[in-house]
Amino acid sequence: MVIYLYSNMIGTFVFNQNFRLREKVLFKDAEIIKNYELLKEGKTLDSEKKFIEKFSNIVNLREDGEELYRVYKELEQFKDKFYEKNIMLTRQQIKMAVSEDNLIIQASDAIEEINRTANVLVKRLREWFSFYLPELENKIKDHEHFVELVLKDKEMLMKEFKIIRTMGAELKKDDEKQIVQLAETIIILYKEKESKENYLEKIMKKYAPNLTKVAGYSIGAQLIALGGSLKNLVMMPASTVQLLGAEKALFRHMRNKSIRPPKHGIIFNHEILQKTKPSKRGKAARRLSDKLSMAVKVDYFKGDFIGDKLRKELEKEFLK
Amino acid sequence: MVIYLYSNMIGTFVFNQNFRLREKVLFKDAEIIKNYELLKEGKTLDSEKKFIEKFSNIVNLREDGEELYRVYKELEQFKDKFYEKNIMLTRQQIKMAVSEDNLIIQASDAIEEINRTANVLVKRLREWFSFYLPELENKIKDHEHFVELVLKDKEMLMKEFKIIRTMGAELKKDDEKQIVQLAETIIILYKEKESKENYLEKIMKKYAPNLTKVAGYSIGAQLIALGGSLKNLVMMPASTVQLLGAEKALFRHMRNKSIRPPKHGIIFNHEILQKTKPSKRGKAARRLSDKLSMAVKVDYFKGDFIGDKLRKELEKEFLK
Repeated sequence: MVIYLYSNMIGTFVFNQNFRLREKVLFKDAEIIKNYELLKEGKTLDSEKKFIEKFSNIVNLREDGEELYRVYKELEQFKDKFYEKNIMLTRQQIKMAVSEDNLIIQASDAIEEINRTANVLVKRLREWFSFYLPELENKIKDHEHFVELVLKDKEMLMKEFKIIRTMGAELKKDDEKQIVQLAETIIILYKEKESKENYLEKIMKKYAPNLTKVAGYSIGAQLIALGGSLKNLVMMPASTVQLLGAEKALFRHMRNKSIRPPKHGIIFNHEILQKTKPSKRGKAARRLSDKLSMAVKVDYFKGDFIGDKLRKELEKEFLK
Repeated sequence: MVIYLYSNMIGTFVFNQNFRLREKVLFKDAEIIKNYELLKEGKTLDSEKKFIEKFSNIVNLREDGEELYRVYKELEQFKDKFYEKNIMLTRQQIKMAVSEDNLIIQASDAIEEINRTANVLVKRLREWFSFYLPELENKIKDHEHFVELVLKDKEMLMKEFKIIRTMGAELKKDDEKQIVQLAETIIILYKEKESKENYLEKIMKKYAPNLTKVAGYSIGAQLIALGGSLKNLVMMPASTVQLLGAEKALFRHMRNKSIRPPKHGIIFNHEILQKTKPSKRGKAARRLSDKLSMAVKVDYFKGDFIGDKLRKELEKEFLK
C-alpha cells in the first residue's frame, strides 16, 4: 500500500492510496517564503522529513502526473487559503523586488534628467539676462558659474568683468526680480543634482565597490541602468558591456555595413578613453570592458575587493 | 550763388558753392536720438530752420547725388566724432530695443519650459515613489497633487486613501529622503512657474489689455511670442493669427493637399474653442481670430478699451 506526500505553498499533505487526506501540516505565515524557495529548488522541507521517516512506503509527488490531478481535487477544500497565501507571497515578492539595482537606476536617471532640465532653464536665463547685461554672456561659458553671477549686483559685475559701458537695458525692479528668481530656482536644481550624486556614489560604493572603482560611480550606475541590473551585467560578455549605450550606432551599422561599428558606448566618457588618443581608443575600450566585466562578477558574487588592482592595470597600460 | 545745407547724426552743416564748410551746429549727446529719428522721418530739424530762415538761397541736401559725395569729403574731418556718436547711438538703440514684447516672450517661453521640465521630473518621482507606495500612483492623476502627497507620512497616506496593505518596500531612511527631496525640488519649480505666470499676467494686462481680455494672458503672450511682437500681430491678417502655432500642420497640408488644412493654431486652447463642438470649431476659430486682430490693433495704437465688448460678443455667439 502506497502513501502519497505532497507539499505546496500552504503546507505539506499526506494522502492514502485512494487520495483521501490523512495528515497535514499547514505552514505559518513566516515559513511560507522560505519553504516556497526550497520547493522551487527541489529540496526536501523539514515538514516532509518527519513523514518520510514515519512511513517507509511514502512517495513524494513533485512532478506532474495523474496522481497530482487527484491530489488537487482533494485539496480543493483549501482553495481559499491557498488563494490568500498566494497573494500574500506575491505581495512580499514585489516588496523584496525593490533591490539596490532599482534605487541605483532611479537615482542615475534622475541625475541625468535634472541635469537636462537645468540646462534648458540656463539657456532661457542666459537669453533673458542678456537684455540686462549682454556683455557677460560670452565671458562665462560655465553654466553654474553664470547662474551664480546673475544673483550679483549689476554694478559689481561690471566692475568685476571690466565692462565699462553696457548695451543692456535698465529694467524695472520687477522685471529684474524675475530673472534673479529664475537663477535661484536653477541653483536649487543644481543642489538637488549634487545631493543625488552623493547618494548614488554612496550606494554604488556599497553595492558594487569594484565596478565603482574601475568605472566611477556615475558610469557604473549608467551601466547598471542600461543593462537593467548588476546581475544582467554579470551575464553579459565584455563586448556587450563595451557597447552599452551605443545601441543606435550598432543597429545603424547592422543595417548598413558601410557605416563603421561603434567602438564604445557609455564607457566613452571614462577617463581612460578620454585621455587615450583616438587611434588607441578601440583597444582601450576592449581592455576597459574586460576589467568592468571582471569587476561586476566580483561585486555580484561578493568576492574580495580587486577594484584597485584592476584600475591600476588599466592606468599603467593607457595613462602611464 | 547756392548754399548747401546738410544734417547727419552729429550735426547740421552749411557749405558754400565750392562745398567748403561755412557754418556748423554740432548736436549735444542728448539731442542725437531725437534728431536721428526726425531725419529718418524726413522732417526739418530745429538746427536747420535757423539756416533756412537766414539764407534764402539754401538747398537742403537729403537725397543721394554728386553734391553729397562732395559734402562727405568735406566732412571727413569729423570722421572720429561721427564714429563715436554712431556707436553711442547703436548702444542706445539696443538698450531701447528691450521692449515689453521681449519680456513677455521670455516669460511665456520660461513658463512653458518650467512646465515641461517639472513634468519630466514628476514622471521620475512617480516611478521612484512607486517602490515605496505603488498603490497611490493610479489614484492621483493630477501631478501637482501627487507631488504634495509624496511629502506626507506613509501611514497617513495609507489611512487617507484606504490602502490596507501595500506592496511597497520598506525603504531605508536615506533612500526615502531622496524621494522626498525630489518632490520638494519639483514643488519649487511649480512655485517658480506660478510666480512667472503672475508676472506675465501683470505685464500683459498693462501692455495688451484688449488682447489679454479676449485671449487670456497665457494664449495672448504665446501669440506675441509666435508672432515675434505685438506690432507683428497688428500687421497680420486675422487668418494668420488663427493659424499661429499650427505651422507644421499648415505646411503638411501645402505639401500634400489631401491632408486637410488646420483650422486653428495655439488658439485651440482658448475656452471658446474648447467649449464649442467640433463641427462649429472652424467658425469659432475664424470669429475668435477676427476679435483678436481687432484687440491687438487697439492695444498697439492705444485705443479705448474694447476687450469686454469683444469678449462678450464671442461668448454670446458660442457659449450662450
